[in-house]
Amino acid sequence: MASIFTKIINGEIPCYKIAEDENYFAFLDINPNAKGHTLCIPKKEVDKIMDLDEDLYMGLMAFSRKIGKAIEASIECKRVGMTVIGLEVPHVHVHLIPLTNMQDATFQNKVSLSEEEFKETAAKIIAAL
Amino acid sequence: MASIFTKIINGEIPCYKIAEDENYFAFLDINPNAKGHTLCIPKKEVDKIMDLDEDLYMGLMAFSRKIGKAIEASIECKRVGMTVIGLEVPHVHVHLIPLTNMQDATFQNKVSLSEEEFKETAAKIIAAL
Repeated sequence: MASIFTKIINGEIPCYKIAEDENYFAFLDINPNAKGHTLCIPKKEVDKIMDLDEDLYMGLMAFSRKIGKAIEASIECKRVGMTVIGLEVPHVHVHLIPLTNMQDATFQNKVSLSEEEFKETAAKIIAAL
Repeated sequence: MASIFTKIINGEIPCYKIAEDENYFAFLDINPNAKGHTLCIPKKEVDKIMDLDEDLYMGLMAFSRKIGKAIEASIECKRVGMTVIGLEVPHVHVHLIPLTNMQDATFQNKVSLSEEEFKETAAKIIAAL
């Protein structure tokens, strides 16, 4: 069965898209740790990051760097952090999180954003790409 | 002033070393989220991951993948996660964490290991490299 992220890539589930190329896709996390929290994923459905072949892994990291630099340039934070966990959705995803304090990195304090705020946030990041 | 990690690289502060090459260094986190929790760092002292130049960043990610695969092969866990935060030590470090549950990724539950356990853990990971 297609993962929820494959459904997002295919447009079957809506998202606030940030960027897409042949192999990778980036969109805002709908349950963000902080405003600007973004997920970068390979289009190929692989469960564990350590199971990605070297080329796909290195491409994902290069793609994530490009998006992370745009987030850091456009969203108020001390720095952008990166996290890969993957215990919930079996499709590799790199969390890019604008960090202001350690709490923002724990996945326990979530922020609630309106549709308008998600759209504005996505537009800001896209403009910085 | 040299960061605590530069002092570890230089041998001024002891560590349980996992691997080293010309540009990168890996060692066990002394305050681990889980047994096998390892830090991968560039020898060059840079504060924020998004400020690493592309070559040094990509090299760090390739080095971290190699170490992460060895951890996943040698330490009991569901998978190895990766996290970069960096709010505490101003020297880029990739956390590689053997994850069994979401709690292991939050940096709030720490495990206490004896010197013997650290040494055994390091030896297991090194043997899998």
